[in-house]
Amino acid sequence: MRVSELSRRSGIPVATIKYYLREGLLHAGELTSATQARYDESHVARLGLIRALLGPARLSVEEAGRVLKVIDNPPETLLDVLGAAQSATAPAPPPDVDPGPALALMERLEWRVQRDGPELLQLATALRAAEDAEIRLIDGGMESYACAMHALAEREVDTVPTDQVPDAVRQAVLGTLLIEPVLLSLRRLAQQDVSTRRFLPDR
Amino acid sequence: MRVSELSRRSGIPVATIKYYLREGLLHAGELTSATQARYDESHVARLGLIRALLGPARLSVEEAGRVLKVIDNPPETLLDVLGAAQSATAPAPPPDVDPGPALALMERLEWRVQRDGPELLQLATALRAAEDAEIRLIDGGMESYACAMHALAEREVDTVPTDQVPDAVRQAVLGTLLIEPVLLSLRRLAQQDVSTRRFLPDR
Repeated sequence: MRVSELSRRSGIPVATIKYYLREGLLHAGELTSATQARYDESHVARLGLIRALLGPARLSVEEAGRVLKVIDNPPETLLDVLGAAQSATAPAPPPDVDPGPALALMERLEWRVQRDGPELLQLATALRAAEDAEIRLIDGGMESYACAMHALAEREVDTVPTDQVPDAVRQAVLGTLLIEPVLLSLRRLAQQDVSTRRFLPDR
Repeated sequence: MRVSELSRRSGIPVATIKYYLREGLLHAGELTSATQARYDESHVARLGLIRALLGPARLSVEEAGRVLKVIDNPPETLLDVLGAAQSATAPAPPPDVDPGPALALMERLEWRVQRDGPELLQLATALRAAEDAEIRLIDGGMESYACAMHALAEREVDTVPTDQVPDAVRQAVLGTLLIEPVLLSLRRLAQQDVSTRRFLPDR
């Protein structure tokens, strides 16, 4: 199909498609003349993926490029796959954060995690901010949040296909990223439900 | 104290403090001359709050200003407090999203939520993205995530003080916002632990 048809099929303007081609997010079509190229279903699928990453997954073009690179060049072992998927999308932590409290929490929980990864520093930053802001924690403290997330992670790792590494990368990256806004909006809606029942039981 | 001492106490550069003063995030000090003002502990505390909001809570200066306005001018009832806290910090959803699937999920769960709030549209956007990207869901699907978040929300609403509305706003806003990065980083670390145990049990 021509670029105009690709635009119609994907719902993405031609100028934006050309931008993705220039940035290397979308692979080139097959040249049919000096100024025209032919595109196929792989381009439609890729544009759906790009839209998912740049939209609700809230990645920048640069971050989306890193994720697509993991998908295009997946690591060899499944454990490295998950690691690469995570580090491609983890927000960069501030450089001077003390990982101590996060490490202590991991040790209390006996979790085996990447000690030099950005996720641990991200947690340390978040724990520090919660402490600095002096917010009240739920009973059980941070361990309660950790247990809830671990129970979900057990089931999430089950969804990663183990036979095809590219499929595993795709599921790990997108499953991690795209469920994040689902979790956060469900948490806020759950808080609405709980507070409505508690403070306005008759409405 | 002078602005230089306020800077030392808060760890925030003088130029940044002056920027917060201009933007109205920080209340003015008491003028002691035409060019100097005196600051107190309330300014140190406020700067800690601003840093928490702009740092790990990842708000823009404009969003932080909206949150601080809820804290400075809290609504009258506790239910309105939580609602205002949420809408001050909810990401703006795209304008043309169909709330249908999110509403259907809320009805299956029998949750009482704001039907015209941004959170429901946020959920609808996130559900759509997950569906478009064709990721595999955990067993039980979105209901499983909803139940996990509801169990946490029950305990989170317990942490909101009911005697002082300003304290309730502060806890609702900061508890919602500051726990978000905690949840997301714990989820990624839990996925690391689960996949390490599953794919590298001997290490």
